[in-house]
Amino acid sequence: MKTPSSLDFLTEALRRLPGIGPKSAQRIAYHMMQHDREGAAMLGRALTQAVEQVHHCASCNTFTENELCETCTDASRDATLLCVVETPADQLMIEQTMTYKGLYFVLMGRLSPLDGIGPRDIHLERLIARATDGMVMEVVLATNFTNEGEATAHYISETLKSRDLKVTRLARGVPVGGELEYVDAGTIARAMLDRRPT
Amino acid sequence: MKTPSSLDFLTEALRRLPGIGPKSAQRIAYHMMQHDREGAAMLGRALTQAVEQVHHCASCNTFTENELCETCTDASRDATLLCVVETPADQLMIEQTMTYKGLYFVLMGRLSPLDGIGPRDIHLERLIARATDGMVMEVVLATNFTNEGEATAHYISETLKSRDLKVTRLARGVPVGGELEYVDAGTIARAMLDRRPT
Repeated sequence: MKTPSSLDFLTEALRRLPGIGPKSAQRIAYHMMQHDREGAAMLGRALTQAVEQVHHCASCNTFTENELCETCTDASRDATLLCVVETPADQLMIEQTMTYKGLYFVLMGRLSPLDGIGPRDIHLERLIARATDGMVMEVVLATNFTNEGEATAHYISETLKSRDLKVTRLARGVPVGGELEYVDAGTIARAMLDRRPT
Repeated sequence: MKTPSSLDFLTEALRRLPGIGPKSAQRIAYHMMQHDREGAAMLGRALTQAVEQVHHCASCNTFTENELCETCTDASRDATLLCVVETPADQLMIEQTMTYKGLYFVLMGRLSPLDGIGPRDIHLERLIARATDGMVMEVVLATNFTNEGEATAHYISETLKSRDLKVTRLARGVPVGGELEYVDAGTIARAMLDRRPT
């Protein structure tokens, strides 16, 4: 018994989604064909449209449909501040805090030598050019606090400091609402070292 | 900060996939745009193509791109046997056992009153018409051995028996390779009741 070739093609294509194995792909393909053809058609259009229209902002490297993204063209932003994040999702999280009014640079990744991701892959030359445009006074490193994120921050920090820029990093410490009993020792150690006057 | 509208549309469309929530949808959308545009374009084409080309076989109700599926048009098949399964995936599993050479009817679901799935939704009238075509001598019920699958088998069995058809059900018992210690009591009870001469 052979399954229809367009169904095989769909199953194969679904495996390109992160975290979807062969069984899940088949299950999803059958589900969509049986119960949600409208959703399947919509997803098909959305993918085609996104591939055509989504590009990287020429200035901050985030996703946009235009030459420059909305944030970079917003004149009310503080152009002396540049926040470096790993992904557009991280950028969104920072925006939601309403505590930052500067501009961004989105690496679209992090240094990860084991995965073959070097400085070129996270657009470090573009970041240096962006940070040394004469307007930027302070670069805020907001990469993740994972090993790779920390290494990335360290690397960028060393590179930019030699160019006479003020480089800062998001504070580490006990999370808001955190109970010491349940916070890991590394975090508490960091919070102790970075303790500050009240 | 607003994300590009085609990226929002993609995130929304990805939520139509079974088991994908808002966070996963966003993560997948960003991943595809950043790391696998080729895969995204391919999946877009595959979905559009499948929605256009995949239909139900007029005879057995499985997925096919033609009026009748390959199995139904295979003259070497035993037309006196009709096996009833819930899904094309189940049909594929039975085919892989190489123990069945008859034809199929695919319900594309199971009776589930709580979810509002009644006899009409599993195409029971078509199954009856198919089973009483004069050729079929035996209907093999191969719905799942879940509560809903069993109820579906029971319902179909009652309906077809009143039409003078031989109706059988896949045997229940201890799985091949199963150790009694680790098999549930219900299965062992069933195997005991259905014990057979060696």
